[in-house]
Amino acid sequence: MSETLIVQEVATRDGFQIEPVFVETAEKIRLIDALAAAGFSRIEVSSFVSPKAVPALSDAAEVFAGLTRRPGTVYVALVPNPRGAERALQAKVDEINLVASVSETHNRANMGMTPAASLEGFARIVETVRGSGVGVNATVATAFGCPFEGDQPVDKVLAQVERYRALGVDGVTLADTTGMANPRQVAHLVERVLPSVGAAGLTLHFHNTRGLGLANVLAAYQAGARRFDAALGGLGGCPFAPGATGNICTEDLVSMAHEMGLATGLDLAALIDLARDLPRLVGHDVPGQVAKAGRPCDLHPAPPLKAA
Amino acid sequence: MSETLIVQEVATRDGFQIEPVFVETAEKIRLIDALAAAGFSRIEVSSFVSPKAVPALSDAAEVFAGLTRRPGTVYVALVPNPRGAERALQAKVDEINLVASVSETHNRANMGMTPAASLEGFARIVETVRGSGVGVNATVATAFGCPFEGDQPVDKVLAQVERYRALGVDGVTLADTTGMANPRQVAHLVERVLPSVGAAGLTLHFHNTRGLGLANVLAAYQAGARRFDAALGGLGGCPFAPGATGNICTEDLVSMAHEMGLATGLDLAALIDLARDLPRLVGHDVPGQVAKAGRPCDLHPAPPLKAA
Repeated sequence: MSETLIVQEVATRDGFQIEPVFVETAEKIRLIDALAAAGFSRIEVSSFVSPKAVPALSDAAEVFAGLTRRPGTVYVALVPNPRGAERALQAKVDEINLVASVSETHNRANMGMTPAASLEGFARIVETVRGSGVGVNATVATAFGCPFEGDQPVDKVLAQVERYRALGVDGVTLADTTGMANPRQVAHLVERVLPSVGAAGLTLHFHNTRGLGLANVLAAYQAGARRFDAALGGLGGCPFAPGATGNICTEDLVSMAHEMGLATGLDLAALIDLARDLPRLVGHDVPGQVAKAGRPCDLHPAPPLKAA
Repeated sequence: MSETLIVQEVATRDGFQIEPVFVETAEKIRLIDALAAAGFSRIEVSSFVSPKAVPALSDAAEVFAGLTRRPGTVYVALVPNPRGAERALQAKVDEINLVASVSETHNRANMGMTPAASLEGFARIVETVRGSGVGVNATVATAFGCPFEGDQPVDKVLAQVERYRALGVDGVTLADTTGMANPRQVAHLVERVLPSVGAAGLTLHFHNTRGLGLANVLAAYQAGARRFDAALGGLGGCPFAPGATGNICTEDLVSMAHEMGLATGLDLAALIDLARDLPRLVGHDVPGQVAKAGRPCDLHPAPPLKAA
């Protein structure tokens, strides 16, 4: 059996949420259906947050209503609080992804409440969801560092993971929210979390803010992680770094995996086609490299010989 | 003793050579002197190639003449043939870097001769240089794949390394000339080459053409490699991929190394300042990320609290 790497596509959530343009609902639906057809087993479609806070994703319910659900694809929505969870259940999501930061400052800035208050809300959400067949994933944001507080103690991260597990979630994501992680730190944290969460339930969410995204994937994979978030074209960004790259790029990650002999179940050529269409949707160039350079196997004709 | 990673700066050679603008000689000298002051033990300054083939580097001799040589910095020049070696010796370089591709098609396209003819010329060069105190490094270009021929057999790469060693060179570089390498391939080749070349004599030269540059560094480091080429700002490029990134980015690499606890001897803040000045020199944005996002330790003030 070949080794496997599972990619969850997050471009229409973590990517679009930071774009100043509103991508039309029909375009979102068309893109997500095409991503599902390219083979994703998991797609984070949108976010049930306040439409005032994130107008780019104010059409989350309409997007879910318009999708052609592909058997074998889990359609996920990010949910910050009980009100969002209600809306997500009404929209018939397959899974909700709860998010709270380990950094108190980041959670207060991002969610308007303490991490403890976020976790209390999550307990109520899990109670509501229980028995509905809807999955629950929970994300530790700023797990590898906070842009306001800096390093976060590993024990605090582990404690949040254990509180998620005590709630009975199906999976846990460790998120490098603003791209502060490094490979040694990643290997260390994955080794600490895997024994309790297990490879089937652990997702790593990296940003390429400082160019280390795929190096961190490599370190996490070597430490036993198998599930990774990524955004088509490397969409996404960092509110503190104008011009910085965003999430790790799906097609670059998939190209790396395939070159290393890891199976993803994904059609890389189809992903490259979809990535090349992104500038039309968002109105600017995107950071992904493989869509510009082609796959390593896409060879070029030899140029005419030079005189010596 | 802390672990160490040695970075050879190549922006003024591998970066500038592909720029359509001619960077003024005085600006080149100022930049190289500033790079030396930032702590580089090795800088590839320029290339003694045909000025007609690479007009951007036609001032190689003037640049060498204008440098303020810093004790402890080795000033290197790329040299493709005996004529270039003569010019390099006249310019009082500390070390010459010979380059031939393992791919016959690439060497004919790039150098106008077969790899065998390149190696014959190198033998004459080494004879000339012997006893002069000038060092000799030799590079295997397209060691991880050729954009015309595709994969190159490992045995062919190893044979070229052994021919370099038989010439009596001081060091060998394995170059991923157009960014086709992947981490598994890198680990495998480094493991094969290290026993004969040794970590002190082996340099890895990666391009970030498909986003894997720093992942490849990580894999090479884990396999025992310690010396890496990198270009300030991620300058450089690929003639087959307009818009693709170039060499791995010096300041991103150094940030990764320092975050991992590896010593480089380099002043990262000074490198970031120099990288931020590059768009003025080359007339366009550059791909490096840390110069945009800041170091992970460069924290931000917490924003005002949101209402829940």
